[in-house]
Order: sequence, then structure tokens, then C-alpha cells
Amino acid sequence: MKKIILASKSIDRIEILKRAGIPFETFITNIDEEKYKTRILNTVELVQELAKAKAIFAKNKLLNNNLDAIIIAADTIVDLDGEIIGKAHHEKEAFNILRKLMGKTHKLITGITITETKNPKIIVDSDTTIVEFLELSDEEIWDYIKTNEWKERAGAYSIKDTASLFISKINGSSSNVIGLPMHKIYEILKKEFGLNLFQIKRI
Amino acid sequence: MKKIILASKSIDRIEILKRAGIPFETFITNIDEEKYKTRILNTVELVQELAKAKAIFAKNKLLNNNLDAIIIAADTIVDLDGEIIGKAHHEKEAFNILRKLMGKTHKLITGITITETKNPKIIVDSDTTIVEFLELSDEEIWDYIKTNEWKERAGAYSIKDTASLFISKINGSSSNVIGLPMHKIYEILKKEFGLNLFQIKRI
Repeated sequence: MKKIILASKSIDRIEILKRAGIPFETFITNIDEEKYKTRILNTVELVQELAKAKAIFAKNKLLNNNLDAIIIAADTIVDLDGEIIGKAHHEKEAFNILRKLMGKTHKLITGITITETKNPKIIVDSDTTIVEFLELSDEEIWDYIKTNEWKERAGAYSIKDTASLFISKINGSSSNVIGLPMHKIYEILKKEFGLNLFQIKRI
Repeated sequence: MKKIILASKSIDRIEILKRAGIPFETFITNIDEEKYKTRILNTVELVQELAKAKAIFAKNKLLNNNLDAIIIAADTIVDLDGEIIGKAHHEKEAFNILRKLMGKTHKLITGITITETKNPKIIVDSDTTIVEFLELSDEEIWDYIKTNEWKERAGAYSIKDTASLFISKINGSSSNVIGLPMHKIYEILKKEFGLNLFQIKRI
């Protein structure tokens, strides 16, 4: 079987692929995300371009090593009424992000790109899930921040963990909120790359 | 802090409470579920009555031991156009359940009951999430069954694991699909029992 390469170091993406029994290796990409963020203002376009850039970065490096592989790349952001929200860099920023999201609904958007090292085909797609938060007090938000779940996560929360206590509702794919719309990965691999994730040798 | 007792042996409920950082102990109840299933035909009423029966079973046993504790009990079923679907007992039954659910939407309903050993108050509630499945082939369903995720789970699937590949959409609480509507647990404990899950000593 062809190797599957996840062009991401996100612990959430790694966990969800593992839990789905999919054998893969990770590849860390090095993209100047800020350059994209200043140039592209449309949210869906931005995450798609970032996912594509990560996939192509990985593809070029892996081709240099003559590796035959399928590459999956993704990028996730939060869109609150058109405002793009990424990851927090420190606790105060995490607080400000969470304060804004409380008692409201936002969009969690993941751009994905799937390609193969030895195939010119590149599939770019995205998935959007509406996420609704309860209203927490400032004190409760600070208590949440102490869990450190805000680190390295778009929107500064982790739906699988303590944030489950304040996520009242989602509408869309739940794996997408974790950072990989798994049903789309399954469909694209099957239809576009002839790889059925139910028929692989599972881990 | 008062002990929290989860009146359930579900590995999914145990995992989601742990991941939310909540310290708790489990207590295994012994309820004749079939008796309820033949008597109660309304789905929401059924899961509520089952959750209540589990909570009261645990409450009586724990009171005998003079333990001061908050008890959380739950029961989950799948409702497909009014047909009540529980857990499969063998692979063929799991196949038949999954075959029925593919390409359609169903309701995942969890009844919950929260009470305290030394408090007559009993709160009974439920939460419903709409879950949409892609259409899988019979061969893919059999491949899924080999993962053993169907065991001990209402509807014979696990959204956190390989089933993420065929769950295209949900509408409602995602923790509810795992077996515990965490936002409702948080709200009920805070409003009805004065326990704030953000302010406890976390695990």
C-alpha cells in the first residue's frame, strides 16, 4: 500500500487519524502563514490556499526523496461574523478569543488538500461546521485557560476535551471541528485516488 | 469536594468525563432494561426512565454505605424514524443496524439523571442529536464491523473512531453522540446542585 503522509503536526489531526485506524506518517511543513493571511481576506479561500501550500511543500520535499505517497494537508480557522480567528499566542489572547466566542455561534472552517507525489492531480476542498458556545463567566474562562487546551488550536478550544462542557451544539461535521473532515477525506481518497480507507490494513 | 459517581460502565462516557478533567468514580448498576423497553414506547421517555432507574439504583446502594455523592446516570439509544435501535449482540445484528442507518439521518437520544445521595432532588433531562451517515457498501460495512467498534454501543458505531469516516454531519451536541451531553451536565450541576465543573480540582 502507498504511504499516507499527513502534512501537519497537529496533535488533534494525528489523534483522529489514528483513532480511525489509518496508518500514516507525519511531515512538518514550513509555510509563511502570515503572508497568506494579509493577502487573502476570504476565509474559505484562505484555509484552502494554506492547505494547498502545505501539501505542495510536502510533495516537493517527498519527491526529492523519490517517495511514492498520498499527501493530506489541512488548515483550520474560526470565522466569527467574518472576523478571522486563529491560534492564541499567550493566555491573555486566548481569554480575549474565548470571551468573544462565548454565548454565540461561529464557523469552524477547515481547508483540505489531497495529492500524490507521483500524480499531478491536486484536490482542494473545505468543510464548515457551525459551533455554538454557552455563555461562560470571565472566571470560568480563566479556569478553562488553566487546562492549556487553548494552545495550538484555532479558536483556543478543544471540543474533545474540557470545551465539551460549553459547546451546546454543532451543525456540520464533528471531525471537522477537530481539524480534519474525515468523511471528505474518505470520499476524496476513494473517488479521486482509488484508495478505500475501509479496505486498508488498519492499525 | 463531594464525590462524583458515574452510574455507567460505558467506556465512552468514562473517556469523555476524564478528558473534561472531571474526577469521578464509576458505579455499575443492574437494571432490567428489557422490562422498560416493552412497557415504554416513547423514545425520549424510555431513555429518561432508564437513566432515572440507574441513578436511583446507585443512590440506594450508596446511601447504604453512607456515601455523600453526586450521581450522574445516562442511557443512549438510536431512533430511526420512530424505530428504537439499541446495541447489537453479534456481528450480523451490527451489520443489519448499520445497513439500515447508511445514507440516512437518525436521532441519537441520551436520557440523563442527576441526583445526590443526601438530597431528594432528582433532575431528569434528555438531549437529541441528529446524525447523518454517508451511504457505505455492504463490503465497507463488514470492513467496519471488523474494527469491533459496534460492541456495546447504541447504533453499533463510535463517532470518535473509525465511524468518523462515514458521519457526514451532526446537528446538536457532539458529546451527546458519545453518550453524555456534557453542556447539560455542566448546566444542571451548576444550577441545581451548586457544583461548578470549572472550579473543581481537575484531574
